[in-house]
Amino acid sequence: MPVSPSPSGPLGVAVLGAGKMGADHVRRVDRLIGGARVAAVADPHPERVASVAEEIEGCAAVTDPLAALDAEGVDAVLIASPGPAHEEALLAALDRGLPIFCEKPLVPEPEAALRVVEAEAKGGRPLISVGFMRRFDAEHQRLKALLDADELGVPRLLHCRHRNLAVHPYFTEAMLITDSVAHEIDSARWLLGQEITAVQVHRPTAALPDHTGLHDPQLVVFETDGGVVVDVEILANGGFGYQVQTEAVCARGTARIGEDHGLMTNTAGRWGGEIAQDYLTRFADAYDRELRAWVDAVRHGTTVGATSWDGYAVAAVSAAGVEAQRTGRRVPVALAPRPARP
Amino acid sequence: MPVSPSPSGPLGVAVLGAGKMGADHVRRVDRLIGGARVAAVADPHPERVASVAEEIEGCAAVTDPLAALDAEGVDAVLIASPGPAHEEALLAALDRGLPIFCEKPLVPEPEAALRVVEAEAKGGRPLISVGFMRRFDAEHQRLKALLDADELGVPRLLHCRHRNLAVHPYFTEAMLITDSVAHEIDSARWLLGQEITAVQVHRPTAALPDHTGLHDPQLVVFETDGGVVVDVEILANGGFGYQVQTEAVCARGTARIGEDHGLMTNTAGRWGGEIAQDYLTRFADAYDRELRAWVDAVRHGTTVGATSWDGYAVAAVSAAGVEAQRTGRRVPVALAPRPARP
Amino acid sequence: MPVSPSPSGPLGVAVLGAGKMGADHVRRVDRLIGGARVAAVADPHPERVASVAEEIEGCAAVTDPLAALDAEGVDAVLIASPGPAHEEALLAALDRGLPIFCEKPLVPEPEAALRVVEAEAKGGRPLISVGFMRRFDAEHQRLKALLDADELGVPRLLHCRHRNLAVHPYFTEAMLITDSVAHEIDSARWLLGQEITAVQVHRPTAALPDHTGLHDPQLVVFETDGGVVVDVEILANGGFGYQVQTEAVCARGTARIGEDHGLMTNTAGRWGGEIAQDYLTRFADAYDRELRAWVDAVRHGTTVGATSWDGYAVAAVSAAGVEAQRTGRRVPVALAPRPARP
Amino acid sequence: MPVSPSPSGPLGVAVLGAGKMGADHVRRVDRLIGGARVAAVADPHPERVASVAEEIEGCAAVTDPLAALDAEGVDAVLIASPGPAHEEALLAALDRGLPIFCEKPLVPEPEAALRVVEAEAKGGRPLISVGFMRRFDAEHQRLKALLDADELGVPRLLHCRHRNLAVHPYFTEAMLITDSVAHEIDSARWLLGQEITAVQVHRPTAALPDHTGLHDPQLVVFETDGGVVVDVEILANGGFGYQVQTEAVCARGTARIGEDHGLMTNTAGRWGGEIAQDYLTRFADAYDRELRAWVDAVRHGTTVGATSWDGYAVAAVSAAGVEAQRTGRRVPVALAPRPARP
Repeated sequence: MPVSPSPSGPLGVAVLGAGKMGADHVRRVDRLIGGARVAAVADPHPERVASVAEEIEGCAAVTDPLAALDAEGVDAVLIASPGPAHEEALLAALDRGLPIFCEKPLVPEPEAALRVVEAEAKGGRPLISVGFMRRFDAEHQRLKALLDADELGVPRLLHCRHRNLAVHPYFTEAMLITDSVAHEIDSARWLLGQEITAVQVHRPTAALPDHTGLHDPQLVVFETDGGVVVDVEILANGGFGYQVQTEAVCARGTARIGEDHGLMTNTAGRWGGEIAQDYLTRFADAYDRELRAWVDAVRHGTTVGATSWDGYAVAAVSAAGVEAQRTGRRVPVALAPRPARP
Repeated sequence: MPVSPSPSGPLGVAVLGAGKMGADHVRRVDRLIGGARVAAVADPHPERVASVAEEIEGCAAVTDPLAALDAEGVDAVLIASPGPAHEEALLAALDRGLPIFCEKPLVPEPEAALRVVEAEAKGGRPLISVGFMRRFDAEHQRLKALLDADELGVPRLLHCRHRNLAVHPYFTEAMLITDSVAHEIDSARWLLGQEITAVQVHRPTAALPDHTGLHDPQLVVFETDGGVVVDVEILANGGFGYQVQTEAVCARGTARIGEDHGLMTNTAGRWGGEIAQDYLTRFADAYDRELRAWVDAVRHGTTVGATSWDGYAVAAVSAAGVEAQRTGRRVPVALAPRPARP
Repeated sequence: MPVSPSPSGPLGVAVLGAGKMGADHVRRVDRLIGGARVAAVADPHPERVASVAEEIEGCAAVTDPLAALDAEGVDAVLIASPGPAHEEALLAALDRGLPIFCEKPLVPEPEAALRVVEAEAKGGRPLISVGFMRRFDAEHQRLKALLDADELGVPRLLHCRHRNLAVHPYFTEAMLITDSVAHEIDSARWLLGQEITAVQVHRPTAALPDHTGLHDPQLVVFETDGGVVVDVEILANGGFGYQVQTEAVCARGTARIGEDHGLMTNTAGRWGGEIAQDYLTRFADAYDRELRAWVDAVRHGTTVGATSWDGYAVAAVSAAGVEAQRTGRRVPVALAPRPARP
Repeated sequence: MPVSPSPSGPLGVAVLGAGKMGADHVRRVDRLIGGARVAAVADPHPERVASVAEEIEGCAAVTDPLAALDAEGVDAVLIASPGPAHEEALLAALDRGLPIFCEKPLVPEPEAALRVVEAEAKGGRPLISVGFMRRFDAEHQRLKALLDADELGVPRLLHCRHRNLAVHPYFTEAMLITDSVAHEIDSARWLLGQEITAVQVHRPTAALPDHTGLHDPQLVVFETDGGVVVDVEILANGGFGYQVQTEAVCARGTARIGEDHGLMTNTAGRWGGEIAQDYLTRFADAYDRELRAWVDAVRHGTTVGATSWDGYAVAAVSAAGVEAQRTGRRVPVALAPRPARP
């Protein structure tokens, strides 16, 4: 049963959260996406929500997320508030039968994520799309297509690099997994079509805690139920830019993405080019494509990209990863039984 | 004075031409571009126009381009018909005060192109945007930004490669210039901010006319009024794919675009990747961005990208290029005095 | 005390082993290296040794390695026989005070390797150079120089890829470590200037034993006494070529070697180039440089490249690696106390 | 009839010229090349020749090149003196029947070069090898092999880039051709197996004479008797390093050499690597291989690499290039009839 916005009009979207990510999504819905408009914005900071909403005609600005869900003309909801606020917003939106685009993480804790999965399942129709934007990145899609086409044979290893310029001082050791490696957890599962069954963390001690107190980088090794070993270098304060690279080692060859050679210069004794400085730059096109696909999907009564189950699985593997990080041991991952997809 | 479509509604676009390019643009306006809709499609082939228009609600399908301009709900026009049909459509649209997006070439003959420039100038406001899509390609924009920022010093040479998989049998020697190198004529002028003053063609004779009767490839050398030498390799039947590469040699370094290293594989004794096979694939994102920018510009009463003057200059340089190709000599280019920009 | 060959004449070298590697070294000493000549060749197969020696003027051909050491004009010895034969040959050469170039492994078993180290130490002067040729590869030397110059800060991770086209049917699971990863054990120690303290092997089960009975590829993770984590992908039957790549992740950046982009082609829809098919091709220049450096070193009474201690350490870490492979557990490495360098 | 050095001894080489290039060759013959030794060095500067010769046992140091040719133990001669001194040395060495390795240019003026060709022809056996070292560069050899194997079909265009960090203040406009592009003249002839028939120079005027008075860079376009068009970017004061790149555009694909990606770093917002700063670094291996091949060839009574005819052809094309540079016109090249190869 498709959502029915006013037949001739655009999809009215309530955006929860007016921080960096939320404001970026508001701009996207307002300026770049056909067939949608921002009907309401909610954020606990009154000035922030006002400044984001004021440039958009007919957009309600509220501090209570539930008020945004109930604002006039709201057909769907985009959740870009901090992770701890997600569960309440998700359950409220599910309760109202609203299609949801939820920025990652779905919900930080596995148990809570499972409650959301079950609430959606009870409703009888798929309503939740989770914002793992790599699924909409052109290079990731090319790699996925190559693996799906079985051109290189069975994948056996996946090497991943996830490098950040720098992280905020409040970034914790655990967030290396739950906030950063969470992306690789999702993309490895998606690229391989497999679930993760165990995780172990190798932590260089040459990486004495830096100024932010982090051991950085770390090498996180996953095992999947298809027998693939996935290693992830997570680097939080690399100092040189934002890089996301993946190489699949398959039975008949390897395939690699993530090296931008678009613009190359020769200057002052060096050849090379610039490294993107953040994910909003690197994945700008992916974010655009993702939201456009979501608006289309909502109009057709379905979801796109990662599902609530994916959101739960990432939360469960992340929790095991934090345990592995703490103990240095191999930690098995046991997922709950998967509810039937509504 | 901005165009005033029905205040709350999308911009109604009449698309002239329902061939490969026209149909692609219809799909773009209908599916990918916010704030616009296809109000009418015109094409001399009744079945073709019907098949393109039938999937779009409220879209008129006509065989007469002028009827499309006058159809209900038309706020602007997108010309994607063959070049020889452009002049009449442009003048009719200018006469009606309609904003125009015109696929390249503006008009094939320089004299006719100049008539269009003058007709627009008389109208007193800019109405014509010409579809040289490279101006909207991310890599070209990065190169342009680098040159504009003067990071590498004065540009002195521009090396260009324009390689096609294969061209249609009806492709003529002259079309190597007027249809293909026309893109480099525009992009060199745009990247450098200079006009072209002379052209010479070096034609390998090892390139005996191939099955299509072409001498292929050719090396076209331009001079600009800023003293830059621009060499263009045009390859029509390369057999390996579609490649567009540009390298600027400046006073303090060089910069190069056009090497796609997004997905690299190791297989069967070789490292490397796939080459895009055509321009619709290579420049898909640029076409999207271009039309989106045009719709925005029309709403703000202005134009984007190449102007009618750019369209005229390309036509004039192309004509000199064909003469240079025929004679083997250096042919000077003399542009008409430039009318004041309306 | 430098070796004293006949003052004006070339260094007389006895080559032990006339297999693939030995024959290659014979050719090198005979044709490419200034100041040396092959004085004797030994191999248990009479026809093989005869065919290798017959083209060289004044070269003795024997089946007993000890006879080669005692042949007329022998000033130094190059050991290229199979690993199990090394210990006897090394001890005999040390006993005669002959400078030795020994192909890797020094000796397969750590205990035996240690006996060789001690025998050399007793002799009071350095006589053994071990043939880990990567130390003479231009790219490895550039990476080493970069790390030594501390341009990128403290190394924290080392990612290594070691990929073979195919291995012989007699290749065993353990040989993945002792024969192949042995190179990374040496090069990681050399690049970092650190000893390895523990090893763990992650074995994809998607890599069901292939036709040769190997689980392939495997991910071997080392820890060093400097706190660096080194991961090595070892791929035995990759099917596409021979690739050796290393990336160091340091405090202020990363550095990578091992991507040959020397000759790039565009053909039939693909850009890219050929992958070297074996180590003799990939490291041809390194082998040349290595032997040339050895001849020079012998003339100056010293050794080059890896020492007998390096040979021992590689044997000890390899043995731990085989244990780690068998158990799936992290296995600590304990090296014997290091004798003073003679 | 092979040269007969003392049967068991090394080839005695007289090196003429003890400047940068000559000293480098002395070091090479002395240290890196098997089967040869420096028997004499000549240079008009007494201190320079003394300092180069003093470290070599039994090496005569003279100021008169003819005295070097006649020194004891001289079996062959290596000419590394300035171009204007070549003719006299070449004729004297030919007169003595000595094998000659002559650094480029053979002789600067085409008429004089032709006299040398004829003098060698009269002698009845090939004695002259000319030092165009690119013929011994691994990448150039791979490209040559690819073209010879006809894998890509008939070559039609050759794009060349020849970029220098900076040239000496005494470098003249004409030297851009005679000293620098001379390398491309030889390598294009060699790669294609064709003679050059015409040349034209496109000179950017945005390249106002720099501090050295040069118009720099320039685009030199050659035609060959096989109908290929060869364009060469010559850049004298590029400021970023030494780069030599060649791309062949053939009937079924393209092939490119000259991009060093051996060591790549990520640092401070940029990916990339270092550019070699000079030709001695970039072509170090080629110089080694070249001299080693020459010593081998001399022992077998033959020559290697470029012949005296190649030296003459480069001189003749260079002279036409200087004329083209001066006039801006297309200048045909007419070579003398080629004497039978002795």
